[in-house]
Amino acid sequence: MDVGFIGLGSMGRGIAANLLAAGHRVTVWNRSQAPLQALVALGARAGAAPRDALQGKVLLSMLADDLALRETLLDGGALDAAAPGLVHANLATISTAFAAELARLHAARGLGYVSAPVFGRPNVAAAGQLNIVAAGPRAAFDALRPLFEAIGQQTWWLGDDAVRANAVKIAGNFMIAAAIETMAEATTLTRAYGVGATEFLEILTGTLFTAPVYRNYGAQIAERRYEPAGFKLRLGLKDVRLALAAGDAGNVPLPLASLLRDNLLEAMAHGDGDRDWAALAEVAARRAAATG
Amino acid sequence: MDVGFIGLGSMGRGIAANLLAAGHRVTVWNRSQAPLQALVALGARAGAAPRDALQGKVLLSMLADDLALRETLLDGGALDAAAPGLVHANLATISTAFAAELARLHAARGLGYVSAPVFGRPNVAAAGQLNIVAAGPRAAFDALRPLFEAIGQQTWWLGDDAVRANAVKIAGNFMIAAAIETMAEATTLTRAYGVGATEFLEILTGTLFTAPVYRNYGAQIAERRYEPAGFKLRLGLKDVRLALAAGDAGNVPLPLASLLRDNLLEAMAHGDGDRDWAALAEVAARRAAATG
Amino acid sequence: MDVGFIGLGSMGRGIAANLLAAGHRVTVWNRSQAPLQALVALGARAGAAPRDALQGKVLLSMLADDLALRETLLDGGALDAAAPGLVHANLATISTAFAAELARLHAARGLGYVSAPVFGRPNVAAAGQLNIVAAGPRAAFDALRPLFEAIGQQTWWLGDDAVRANAVKIAGNFMIAAAIETMAEATTLTRAYGVGATEFLEILTGTLFTAPVYRNYGAQIAERRYEPAGFKLRLGLKDVRLALAAGDAGNVPLPLASLLRDNLLEAMAHGDGDRDWAALAEVAARRAAATG
Amino acid sequence: MDVGFIGLGSMGRGIAANLLAAGHRVTVWNRSQAPLQALVALGARAGAAPRDALQGKVLLSMLADDLALRETLLDGGALDAAAPGLVHANLATISTAFAAELARLHAARGLGYVSAPVFGRPNVAAAGQLNIVAAGPRAAFDALRPLFEAIGQQTWWLGDDAVRANAVKIAGNFMIAAAIETMAEATTLTRAYGVGATEFLEILTGTLFTAPVYRNYGAQIAERRYEPAGFKLRLGLKDVRLALAAGDAGNVPLPLASLLRDNLLEAMAHGDGDRDWAALAEVAARRAAATG
Repeated sequence: MDVGFIGLGSMGRGIAANLLAAGHRVTVWNRSQAPLQALVALGARAGAAPRDALQGKVLLSMLADDLALRETLLDGGALDAAAPGLVHANLATISTAFAAELARLHAARGLGYVSAPVFGRPNVAAAGQLNIVAAGPRAAFDALRPLFEAIGQQTWWLGDDAVRANAVKIAGNFMIAAAIETMAEATTLTRAYGVGATEFLEILTGTLFTAPVYRNYGAQIAERRYEPAGFKLRLGLKDVRLALAAGDAGNVPLPLASLLRDNLLEAMAHGDGDRDWAALAEVAARRAAATG
Repeated sequence: MDVGFIGLGSMGRGIAANLLAAGHRVTVWNRSQAPLQALVALGARAGAAPRDALQGKVLLSMLADDLALRETLLDGGALDAAAPGLVHANLATISTAFAAELARLHAARGLGYVSAPVFGRPNVAAAGQLNIVAAGPRAAFDALRPLFEAIGQQTWWLGDDAVRANAVKIAGNFMIAAAIETMAEATTLTRAYGVGATEFLEILTGTLFTAPVYRNYGAQIAERRYEPAGFKLRLGLKDVRLALAAGDAGNVPLPLASLLRDNLLEAMAHGDGDRDWAALAEVAARRAAATG
Repeated sequence: MDVGFIGLGSMGRGIAANLLAAGHRVTVWNRSQAPLQALVALGARAGAAPRDALQGKVLLSMLADDLALRETLLDGGALDAAAPGLVHANLATISTAFAAELARLHAARGLGYVSAPVFGRPNVAAAGQLNIVAAGPRAAFDALRPLFEAIGQQTWWLGDDAVRANAVKIAGNFMIAAAIETMAEATTLTRAYGVGATEFLEILTGTLFTAPVYRNYGAQIAERRYEPAGFKLRLGLKDVRLALAAGDAGNVPLPLASLLRDNLLEAMAHGDGDRDWAALAEVAARRAAATG
Repeated sequence: MDVGFIGLGSMGRGIAANLLAAGHRVTVWNRSQAPLQALVALGARAGAAPRDALQGKVLLSMLADDLALRETLLDGGALDAAAPGLVHANLATISTAFAAELARLHAARGLGYVSAPVFGRPNVAAAGQLNIVAAGPRAAFDALRPLFEAIGQQTWWLGDDAVRANAVKIAGNFMIAAAIETMAEATTLTRAYGVGATEFLEILTGTLFTAPVYRNYGAQIAERRYEPAGFKLRLGLKDVRLALAAGDAGNVPLPLASLLRDNLLEAMAHGDGDRDWAALAEVAARRAAATG
């Protein structure tokens, strides 16, 4: 299939490579040149401007946030120059408000828009093992299926309203942050009674909390190992803000998300923005004067 | 082994039955007669007073809270009348402060005290599949091993200081409550965007949150099924209070535990104290006016 | 002085009338016609477009929020069409981010920009008794002095950086909301012990809390009197969001503001958006099932 | 009147001195000797044991907390040895639960019990200017009136149920702590925008927040002056715990009190327990990394 791909960050480059590996013809665009050339070396065609990635049957995009997508897709007129009937799968984690706006803008131009945010870190993206949560017009989704199979292990379909997929992704990331905060407080408490975090988390992740989220982040928290960042704390803060904004729009109080926001801000203030968001655990320790 | 057992509530009766099934001679005591006679029917000897359960080599107790244990073991002089060298394994979830007091009181009388709180609901207790977190003097622990094998699937040893086991149990229950709150907020949010809780939780528990805690409580929350109670909300509130008290004693702020406390109090005020503590999820829904 | 005035809402109309009463020549503009004609009846000149209010020496604006000001002043080109050297005093409560942007946009056009948000409800505005917190270039401020004297009882000067005034106003409104929440929780607590809110607040506002904020909102809370709204709850929520956004930009955790946000959202969800923001007190009562 | 007085701490000594100054015959008891001898020098009679202070017509007590009062009054049998018909006014801030217990214990012995907690710091106590919140049997209250006039500027009567007075005192102290937290967050926010706390608080306490609580604590916060302590932070934490316990007993969620608890614990962990509780403001600053 003729596929455009925009956004070759740490996630996007692995995804685009998997599209190439699956035999698709991929036209890539990226603001910086190095990742773009790396994909060209794998067989991609380099676009000179964003709009060049919108001339095939399908566009996949994986940009950092609402603003980056707005600048790349809308401000320069790329969407207006899209090939007729183009279907756009937006893999990024964006706000529910912007997702709704994008759905409208695409529909008004006769284009298909599918929100398809993914769960998984860069290594999972590179392995083609992402979990994809998709929503948007059914025909558009069907057109994307072979691509989703090339980049993910499983895809969930949530119906015609694209915003639903964003709500699920945002709520899912909130749940991860909540799990980190939970382990942060629990281990700060047990440490005060002489039980090390490794010891404590081994028991819990060996019984009730056998999930990857607890095992992986638990190990980071126990070892206070926050670098290299699998997912930067400042991006985690961005996603908690998205949860709060989504709740705000629907009059949904989210006190745990509020707590996460304040603690992530404290982490930012103390210089942990570029460390893995497991560093949220340092906040609980600092507050208890237990960081020594 | 000659074993005493005090406290035949929904957890205790299954545990005591497993001790009998493993061939131990068990003297049971309980405030109400019906559960006591049920155990006698299985081969136990009925004690006439708590102290009758302290005449063997080992005592296991499973009482509701600090107060019940204090009244049963201390106020009537039962501990003073214990057989020389008795080892006491306290399976209940009690405060760290009272655990420390019990350790002192036993030591002063030449008795062994092991805090051995368990993870598992009544059906798990009946099946002999509890997870046991134990701490206390090593020799006392060793004497208890065969009993722990009869009632549990796995035992963790946390060293000589009995309080550590209580801290772990308290922190573990806090983590369960936090998981419930997390799912409550997340599903209230996604519902506001048209995604049902079942649909949302299927995705999350099928990927990142594959742990029993999320699967089991998630199903209850999605179906709003809070009866019969596996663990009553008022007991969950008790345990969150224990976490806060443990933090309080060590100057450990626990904002998420505070949030849980306030939400559990709201649930109490609205009459949910005797429902399963998954009913905590109704608080988030009520606050968003989304209970209809 | 030749003065332009934009925004004749419940606050603006009283302010503009006071400018007229002080002998200034005022050109007014407003989206809806009725308030505009009312001012014309008092001697104002009606502008046909926003830009007509930017042809004098000074512009005062009092619009609802960032968006209204952006649409009125920027989107239609009004600011580009301003008279040379115009000084603009923005009396509204806007975000710190937009205030910074406005300061840049005015400076780039050789115009003066002063943030001058006010404390006071519509009756205070009508009486010319506002408290004005101003910041911006000194010369611009000096040009505005006679106008501030016509509309307020006191003006504080906070230096050249306009954003400071907005920070103070936002923090001040946060303090009011915090006082309401404080009384809400305190009275819900004392009611549970048989002490009525009126009785309780009489003691406190007669001793330690003698301030107008406590006396006025305290009376509303005690009487559960939320209509007519002196300041609508949805606007209070807007202002708490501004506080959170200002904190967010500076990595300042504001847990009490977060708590206020969640409680105000609950009030919104339960239909209290158009009542006075003292209705925040109903949230604490509802959560304790004490609204009967 | 023949008056007994127990508890000559920083508050009690000034109060007892005022009773002497008003011409009453006062028998004092105190655990440590120095303050006791100081009162003897003013004309008091020294009791050899707590019960010696219960032989007059009236007992006033001002002890640190529930435990101190329980040990002094109950454990040693002092209450059992009280003169027939003794009326006891308890000036201290104790829990609602213990106040209810005391009311029962006095009534069962034919004694009068009045909860009469006071608002005011030691200098106010010494000046005889306390604000007294009293509740208990009317006849007992009437007997105490001349004493309250000697030690306070105003007394509020809240009816027969002694616990009401404690609820009011506890809720009042919660309000003070909330005001400190409010100023802490507000000034941390404005500081981030270049507005000093003194400047900010001058505006607010000159307009909407003209109450002594804001003026006095505001000055301390602005100057970061926490020593000498007018009221120690660890006592403030005690009082917030009393609010939470009172809410807990009545199923009243108090999220702002929870927030205060966690922040006060952080202050304790960082060594501020013996500073004035205005030092709570340092927590907000530390979290924003703005303590420099």
